[in-house]
Amino acid sequence: MKVIQGGVATPMGFQANGMSCGIKRSGRPDLALIASDVPCVAASVFTKNSIKAAPIVVTQKKMRYNKAQAIVVNSGNANCFTGSFGLFYAQKTTEVIAKLMNIHPNYVLVASTGIIGKPLPYKKIESAAPELVRGLSPKSGQKAARAILTTDKKIKEIAVEFLLGRKKITIGACAKGSGMIQPNMATMLGFVTTDAAINASMLKLALKQSVAESFNCITVDGCMSTNDMVTVLSNGFAKNDMIDQEDHKDFKTFSNALRHVCLEMAKRIVYDAEGATKFIKVSVLGAKTKEQAKSVCYAIANSNLVKTAAFGCDPNWGRVAAAVGSLSLNVTEKNLKIHFSSFAKQHINITVDLHLGNQKATVYTSDLTLEYVKINGKYN
Amino acid sequence: MKVIQGGVATPMGFQANGMSCGIKRSGRPDLALIASDVPCVAASVFTKNSIKAAPIVVTQKKMRYNKAQAIVVNSGNANCFTGSFGLFYAQKTTEVIAKLMNIHPNYVLVASTGIIGKPLPYKKIESAAPELVRGLSPKSGQKAARAILTTDKKIKEIAVEFLLGRKKITIGACAKGSGMIQPNMATMLGFVTTDAAINASMLKLALKQSVAESFNCITVDGCMSTNDMVTVLSNGFAKNDMIDQEDHKDFKTFSNALRHVCLEMAKRIVYDAEGATKFIKVSVLGAKTKEQAKSVCYAIANSNLVKTAAFGCDPNWGRVAAAVGSLSLNVTEKNLKIHFSSFAKQHINITVDLHLGNQKATVYTSDLTLEYVKINGKYN
Repeated sequence: MKVIQGGVATPMGFQANGMSCGIKRSGRPDLALIASDVPCVAASVFTKNSIKAAPIVVTQKKMRYNKAQAIVVNSGNANCFTGSFGLFYAQKTTEVIAKLMNIHPNYVLVASTGIIGKPLPYKKIESAAPELVRGLSPKSGQKAARAILTTDKKIKEIAVEFLLGRKKITIGACAKGSGMIQPNMATMLGFVTTDAAINASMLKLALKQSVAESFNCITVDGCMSTNDMVTVLSNGFAKNDMIDQEDHKDFKTFSNALRHVCLEMAKRIVYDAEGATKFIKVSVLGAKTKEQAKSVCYAIANSNLVKTAAFGCDPNWGRVAAAVGSLSLNVTEKNLKIHFSSFAKQHINITVDLHLGNQKATVYTSDLTLEYVKINGKYN
Repeated sequence: MKVIQGGVATPMGFQANGMSCGIKRSGRPDLALIASDVPCVAASVFTKNSIKAAPIVVTQKKMRYNKAQAIVVNSGNANCFTGSFGLFYAQKTTEVIAKLMNIHPNYVLVASTGIIGKPLPYKKIESAAPELVRGLSPKSGQKAARAILTTDKKIKEIAVEFLLGRKKITIGACAKGSGMIQPNMATMLGFVTTDAAINASMLKLALKQSVAESFNCITVDGCMSTNDMVTVLSNGFAKNDMIDQEDHKDFKTFSNALRHVCLEMAKRIVYDAEGATKFIKVSVLGAKTKEQAKSVCYAIANSNLVKTAAFGCDPNWGRVAAAVGSLSLNVTEKNLKIHFSSFAKQHINITVDLHLGNQKATVYTSDLTLEYVKINGKYN
C-alpha cells in the first residue's frame, strides 16, 4: 500500500466540489459535495449522543438500504436543536441536490457541522446548489475537504493505492475535527470513497473495525457531539473480485488499508485540535480487558491536569497516577508503572503499565492550551 | 442558627496554629495544627481514588476508634507516590506532634496537600513542630486556615452558632480547594470542629449526609485527588444532651448546621477555584433517580465546552444539550428543557428539566479560563 496525492475524488468514478454559499460570515467555503458516477454501496457510523442533529436523523433513514451516490455537507451550522424545521431542511437539502444530479433523493446523504441551535439558512444552500453540482470534478477533492472545516486550521485529506489481485484499488478520504472531539465520534466528520468492489455487510464490518481503532481512539476535550458521522462509499469501478465475506482473500488487505486511512485522518484531527500544541499518545498495557485499557487511556487523555501539564512541558506523572486512580481499579502505587517521553517535544508518549493482565489500548489526544479556552470562550 | 466570625478554633475547647516551615519555596505558611483540649469523637470521609497518599493511609488507620485530639496538616507537598518513606514520615509527623502535646500518637491525624511524587521534607516539619505546638491558641484558627492553602487565593473559614435545648453549640471549619476538585473529594481538605456532644456513629452519619450534599456536589476540573479528606472533631464541651441516635430530638438540628457549614465551605472552594471568574449552579430536574440527576449535573458541570462558554459569557445552550445527550439517556430534543440565567453575571444558573421523572440534584462548578490553563501549565 502506498500513500498518494489526493483525497475523496481520487478513486475512479468519484468527483467532488466545495464552495462558499454564505453560511459562514467570514465568507470561507461552507458547502461541499462528494459524488460517485454511479450508485455506491455505503456504510456509516454515527454519533452515540442520544441527541442527534437533523442531518444525522435524515441520513440514518436513507442508509437503510446501504446505498448512496452523493454526500452534501455544510459547515458553519450544525442544524441541531432546530426542531421539525431542521429535519425538513435537511431533507430538502438532499432533494435539491438529487434533482440537480438527476438521481433518487434516497441516494443523497447529508451532514452538517458548526454552531448548534440556529436555524439552517437553507435558502443559501438552495441558491448555491446548481453551481455546486455544476462544478463537480475529479480534481476538486480538496475543495470539498476545505469546505467541511469549521475551526480546523488544516485541510485533512489522504489517498492510498494498493493491489487486490491484479486490480489497483484506491481509497480516498477527507475529514474535519477540531473541537468537541472524543470517544464515539465527535464534531467529527469523515468521508471515505473507494473504487473497490465490496458488498454492504463487508463494507460495514470493515468500517466498524477501522473506526474502533481510529476515530474512536481520539479525544480532544471529552465532549461528544450531536453531528458526528463517518461514511464510506464504494462504487466497484476497480473491478476487483467482489469482497463478499469475511474470509475472502482480499478482505484483510482492504480492511487494513481502510484502517490506515481512518487512523491517519483521526491523528490529523488530533494534530489540528483546537489550540493544540502537542500530540499525545497514551498507551495502557497490562490491563485485564481491552475495555479497561481503553477506559484508563481515556481517564488520562481527558484529564485537564494531564493536558495542561503537557502544554506547560511539565512531565508531572503524579497527575497521570491520579487520573488512573480515579477509576476504581485494583491499582496500587507499587505495581503501577508510568513512563514518559520528553514533554518538551511536540510528540509525547505516555505509557502506563497496570500489571493487572495482558490487554492494551492506545488513545491519541492533544494538550489543553490557552488557545483552546480562547477559541471556545468566543465561538460564535 | 447564625453565622459568626471565626473558624476551627472558635468552638469551646479548641485551639489552632499555622506557620511557615519552609516546604513552600515562596515562604508562605505551610504547616497547620488544629487541636482540642481533650480527646474528641471524630469522623472522616476520604478520597475514593484507588491511589491514596501516605497521610490518608495513616489517618485511615488512626480513625479505627473514631477518636482524635489533633490534626496536623502540611501544604506544598502531598506526600503521595512517595513509597514506604512517605508512610514512615506521615507517621513520624503525627508522633512528633503527639510527643510535644503529650498525647497518644493515635490521637493525631495527618493531612497533606500540594505537589505529588516528591519526598516530604520531614526534617522541616520536625524542626518547626515545637513552635507550632507552642503557638496553639483559640485566636489562631485563621492561621491554620491560611497554612493549609496551596493555589487558593482566599482563606476559607466559617463558624456558626445555634441552640440545642438551652445549650449554645458552635461549629467551626476551614477548607482548602482550588485545583483538582471533583466528585468524591478532590485536592480538597475540610476540617470541622464542634463543641457539641454527639456519639461516633451519629457524627459519622451527619458528616456523610452533609458531605454528600456539599463537598461531593462540586467540581472544578473533574479530576480526583489522592489526598482528599474531610474530618470533624467534637469534644462535647457544650454539655448538650448527647446525640446518640438518629431519632434524637437534636440530631436534625445539628445535621442541618453541619450541612450548612460544609456547603458554605464547598461553595467557597468553587468561588476560589483555580482561575475561576464564574460561579455556576447546575440544577437538574425531572430525572428518574437522584443518581441520574447527579450524573447529568456532572456531565454539564465537567464539560469543557460549557465551562469555556461561561468564561466567554456566551450562553451556548447547544453545548449543554450535547453534554446531556452524551449520557445514554432517553432524552430527546423535544422534551429536554434548558434554562439559563444571564451569562454576563458572576453567578450563572443552568437548569435542565429531563421530563423523565421527579428526582433532582444540584452541582456547583466554575468556568474554565485562561488563568486555569496558565496555573496548571506551570504548577511546580
